Amino acid sequence: MRFVRFRKDNEIVHGLVEGRKVYELTGSIFSQPKRTGEIFDLDGVELDIPVVPRTFYAAGLNYQTHLEKMSAAVGLDASAPDAPDIGYRANNALTAHERPIIIPADATDQVHYEGELVVVIGKEGKHLTSETAMDVVFGYTIGNDVSERSWQKSDKTMWRSKNTDTFKPMGPWVETEVNLEAMTTTVRLNGQEQIKFKTNDMITGIVPYLVHMTKYLTLYPGDVIWMGTEGTSPNLLDGDVVEVELSGIGTLRNPVIRL
Amino acid sequence: MRFVRFRKDNEIVHGLVEGRKVYELTGSIFSQPKRTGEIFDLDGVELDIPVVPRTFYAAGLNYQTHLEKMSAAVGLDASAPDAPDIGYRANNALTAHERPIIIPADATDQVHYEGELVVVIGKEGKHLTSETAMDVVFGYTIGNDVSERSWQKSDKTMWRSKNTDTFKPMGPWVETEVNLEAMTTTVRLNGQEQIKFKTNDMITGIVPYLVHMTKYLTLYPGDVIWMGTEGTSPNLLDGDVVEVELSGIGTLRNPVIRL
Repeated sequence: MRFVRFRKDNEIVHGLVEGRKVYELTGSIFSQPKRTGEIFDLDGVELDIPVVPRTFYAAGLNYQTHLEKMSAAVGLDASAPDAPDIGYRANNALTAHERPIIIPADATDQVHYEGELVVVIGKEGKHLTSETAMDVVFGYTIGNDVSERSWQKSDKTMWRSKNTDTFKPMGPWVETEVNLEAMTTTVRLNGQEQIKFKTNDMITGIVPYLVHMTKYLTLYPGDVIWMGTEGTSPNLLDGDVVEVELSGIGTLRNPVIRL
Repeated sequence: MRFVRFRKDNEIVHGLVEGRKVYELTGSIFSQPKRTGEIFDLDGVELDIPVVPRTFYAAGLNYQTHLEKMSAAVGLDASAPDAPDIGYRANNALTAHERPIIIPADATDQVHYEGELVVVIGKEGKHLTSETAMDVVFGYTIGNDVSERSWQKSDKTMWRSKNTDTFKPMGPWVETEVNLEAMTTTVRLNGQEQIKFKTNDMITGIVPYLVHMTKYLTLYPGDVIWMGTEGTSPNLLDGDVVEVELSGIGTLRNPVIRL
């Protein structure tokens, strides 16, 4: 099943996507939502981010080539972390499918995309095991972890480099049925393929990641975990369009505006 | 005015505290809530955290003595940052007044309190100036930024050291009327005063902090900003009780359980 959030008059409502139609839902998508009976054309609705996370987690360097290149770029040791590297992003930075990534005037040229698989949590869970971890996963969406590399190097935290408003496109929907092993991530810039990689080829996979996190923290419905990216990105320019496609989910598409 | 969130049957509702009474409210506390007519005894209700942040911000080293001692303890340069140091904490770690701080069995002895002023945002704001910054501040509450110092040193992020479940007590309420200049922060351990400092004696005050943050990010109603702490803490032991009192707001009290 494929769940969206979209604007209906002055409120944001949930919907179930079937074909090119959106069936409006009432109640939480995590606990048996009901159809209201209203139906919209998918092409006619303005999508919002598909879920508002309670906590917004992000894996750090979680693909081999990206680990090596980024470590060199920001001056860190390139060895893989001993344990999964768990970080946070901020809700202010989230923006929807088709909405612009707006780069502030004082950013350097070094603003990059990072196409990522996003895990959406649907059930409360702590002390998960390799047997129970997948029980709390509701579905998956797509994220673009836009990053300003000079701020990533200069600031003590990633508040500006990764959490400037609009730097976290997420969407277009949450897909509950996927085949992770068969999934491919493709990033296109202005229609040109930049990189293609096996989505599940992570240094730390979803199950060990969830097991490790929940030794210390409780996951709740609506939490998201961005699983990291592979490769590198050219500098994003004003007028660029970035597409992140995950086979079996869909395509997250955002234009770039440089102020 | 003094706003709480509390348990009523199986839901969490808002209330206005007057004396020892709680007047139940309906609607957002940020936009003219209404009294439902139901009244409870403050001593008889189970308080929850007073606000669920959309984004949970935290100032890093923001008081002089704490900056010097913590920098030495975790092996960092002790000079004040050039610009305000803006970090994040995670909602999973929040816990209410009177609820226990639960220290995992594999934590070292070095688990410390940090008594903090918490700014609660009530209006959306970006590109704030020194003239407009305080317009978005709704009120204040109290936070205890419990920290495991060995994890703070060993991990790449503060996910475990500061965001283990229950490591972020916040409450007991949001107070909208305070005199920041006259405010004192006092931390007591088992009734014994440990430290007392002028709350507003920050390296970066609230106004410049809000001005700097909102160059890049939008603040929203419900966001919280923890403003940092002064001094140091002894190691917290099983059975300890930590109280953080901010004059003009109240006292946040939490017992400690070590697993």
